[in-house]
Amino acid sequence: MHKLYVVGLGPGGADGMTVRAKDAIEKSDVIVGYTVYIDLIRDLFPDKAYLSTPMRKEVDRVRLALQTAAEGKTVAMVCSGDAGVYGMSGLCEELLGEYPGVTLETVPGVSAVLSGAAILGAPLMHDFAVISLSDLLTPWEKIEKRLLSAAEADFVICLYNPASHKRRDYLNRACELVLRYASPETVCGIARNIGREGEKTRILTLGELKDAEVDMFSTVFIGNSETRIINGKMVTPRGYLYE
Amino acid sequence: MHKLYVVGLGPGGADGMTVRAKDAIEKSDVIVGYTVYIDLIRDLFPDKAYLSTPMRKEVDRVRLALQTAAEGKTVAMVCSGDAGVYGMSGLCEELLGEYPGVTLETVPGVSAVLSGAAILGAPLMHDFAVISLSDLLTPWEKIEKRLLSAAEADFVICLYNPASHKRRDYLNRACELVLRYASPETVCGIARNIGREGEKTRILTLGELKDAEVDMFSTVFIGNSETRIINGKMVTPRGYLYE
Repeated sequence: MHKLYVVGLGPGGADGMTVRAKDAIEKSDVIVGYTVYIDLIRDLFPDKAYLSTPMRKEVDRVRLALQTAAEGKTVAMVCSGDAGVYGMSGLCEELLGEYPGVTLETVPGVSAVLSGAAILGAPLMHDFAVISLSDLLTPWEKIEKRLLSAAEADFVICLYNPASHKRRDYLNRACELVLRYASPETVCGIARNIGREGEKTRILTLGELKDAEVDMFSTVFIGNSETRIINGKMVTPRGYLYE
Repeated sequence: MHKLYVVGLGPGGADGMTVRAKDAIEKSDVIVGYTVYIDLIRDLFPDKAYLSTPMRKEVDRVRLALQTAAEGKTVAMVCSGDAGVYGMSGLCEELLGEYPGVTLETVPGVSAVLSGAAILGAPLMHDFAVISLSDLLTPWEKIEKRLLSAAEADFVICLYNPASHKRRDYLNRACELVLRYASPETVCGIARNIGREGEKTRILTLGELKDAEVDMFSTVFIGNSETRIINGKMVTPRGYLYE
């Protein structure tokens, strides 16, 4: 077959997957992924062979998947959320040329920007920007520039990777930048463990977000100037009621 | 039950839906939606009752769904892609308070920004901005400001609603604005009829995109300064190979 599927699993469990993602995994002989995501699906597909590599070994993991496909297996490389948003699909495309005969198919999934929005309410009814606060692969100056531009243009902002052990104060720094243009009363939300055990949401002001504790299982939403709280939900009205 | 599900159908056919979206529709007595989306799923769930309203009747449609739920039916309001991205979930949240006893659950789906990216390659490996070019509910000046800010900060940009009969030159105007900061050689992509019959992609430069013909079934991607064409795909490298 020489086929590699790059599959977004969506949030959490089996029901967050698309039918097409399930089909791709079922058609595959071997599932490759980061250890934590493999554990999420091993029980759902117990008859598959699994190969995993730890975090920060992305290049090894992608080569393992491509090499296994080149040897004639049908392979699914799985990612949480969507494989195309800060995921593995780019690296697969970059390295594909080194494995002649292998074809690649990306199966999109529900990324945290969408699944987090759904449990917080409806924050994305208007234009939005998605920014990762991880500076492992991006200079912090570039992240700063994007935060400032997004805030100045009144985008709803969704932050991926808002914190890690080494980057405890990054969310604080990001909020300081957004506060140059946005009110401290701006409605914000935190979605944690989306679609998994311990799922939790919190709605708070930008002033409060600045000093909030978040972790790597959290996705953060900063509303635009029109975002409000309606029945305890974070909602950015699209304007249908005011035409 | 007094329950309203707001369900994102994902792109096109049945296999783009999540398992949870299918379950929500199966649990519902009545499906409410815009005529075109209803036609997409009527064959999949032939035993359901369907209620539809034409385009631009969003407030009527949401009230119909909430009223039907208030009368004791379990209702699914369906949207293409994700209900939370320029979809109906915001209006449902806004009007929910007028229908006591009805509970709302938003089931996220794969929006065109994700499904379009997957067929074009991997354009979203880096921070991105999603902007609708429709000025039905948003002043054009605000859209202009967002285009300029996103381009200046080197976001990958995804454009929803890039054209309509009345707005034939909007994509041209948007490209002119982006060109103030981005090279005319910037890699761009158009995804049309994603996940449906007639699915098509085109990769082109920003200079070419300026004069391209697009329609309301198209989603447009403008790369950032690092986006390139790899094996005919639009890829924004995340940087793993250059650490």
